[in-house]
Amino acid sequence: MHRVRMGRAAGVIAAALVGATVLALGGTAGAHVSVVPSSAAKGGFQILSFSTPNEKDNANTVGLEVTLPTKYPIPFVSVKPMTGWTITTEKTKLAKPVTTDDGQITEAVTKITWTATAGGLEPGQFDLFTISAGPLPTKPSKLEFKALQTYSDGDVVSWIEPVVKGAAEPEHPAPTLTLTKASSDGH
Amino acid sequence: MHRVRMGRAAGVIAAALVGATVLALGGTAGAHVSVVPSSAAKGGFQILSFSTPNEKDNANTVGLEVTLPTKYPIPFVSVKPMTGWTITTEKTKLAKPVTTDDGQITEAVTKITWTATAGGLEPGQFDLFTISAGPLPTKPSKLEFKALQTYSDGDVVSWIEPVVKGAAEPEHPAPTLTLTKASSDGH
Repeated sequence: MHRVRMGRAAGVIAAALVGATVLALGGTAGAHVSVVPSSAAKGGFQILSFSTPNEKDNANTVGLEVTLPTKYPIPFVSVKPMTGWTITTEKTKLAKPVTTDDGQITEAVTKITWTATAGGLEPGQFDLFTISAGPLPTKPSKLEFKALQTYSDGDVVSWIEPVVKGAAEPEHPAPTLTLTKASSDGH
Repeated sequence: MHRVRMGRAAGVIAAALVGATVLALGGTAGAHVSVVPSSAAKGGFQILSFSTPNEKDNANTVGLEVTLPTKYPIPFVSVKPMTGWTITTEKTKLAKPVTTDDGQITEAVTKITWTATAGGLEPGQFDLFTISAGPLPTKPSKLEFKALQTYSDGDVVSWIEPVVKGAAEPEHPAPTLTLTKASSDGH
């Protein structure tokens, strides 16, 4: 496309086409590493799964490393055991402690790594890497969980690009959780 | 709090404060043994998971025992197999048979016990203990599933305290399913 040669009307049409393309591509989000559900209530606990597809024809997915938010840390994070994978978590001392019902939280899980012990995800497979996390922060409108997907051929796919509202979806968006208004019972 | 000494206005303020506390405490539900989803349609079948966190630093969760309602029994209950756990169910003869499409049900599952065979849940882990149950009763507005969580150090945590609307959340609430108006298709 040679946009420099187009007049204003053509530019508008092109923009509309780009919009339509984005809309159509929206359907491909499932082929990304993404967080399920895609939204959760502020202040609540939530079971979150990182839906991870193997996108290669000739290699397995053998590792997933997810970074948890540090600006708005989540005080309680636990991981769901998963047959065929070991899970390690990394805690970081918080710059600013978070006060909870159970007292002050001075460190939080900031990285979770799943490593395949039995071959991992084959071509054509996906899996859910699941955590329980809460209370979710009440301030931001979304949380980003940057993820690195490791393949058996050594490739690492970085799902770390920010998702910007109104902009076209990046090629490798970071799994992003939209935070919604707290419900009355916190669920 | 000394409510007996308060006038009406103070009582209203206190009630409002209690409400605010509930709102804030709602967020801790996920660090409890809780039922997911937290609500389901009356009269329908529902897949229910008992989300169970290991809350200890130095012991594993090795057992979970869930009691099903007997006043409003659920005629059909089945359990999802789970690697590393054996599952036993206990049936009880019903005081009052329940009539279903498949005839009269005279006994129902009233207790389900998961027992770890491979170490159970380690510190920092949670898991989902899943059943399919239905038809859910049409009368009550909620169902309580009292749960006992057993640790490898012998401790048993009893998640049996009733959740009372408008009151502060107890320390160990019973997993409670809110029953909502039946949808048109019974699901």
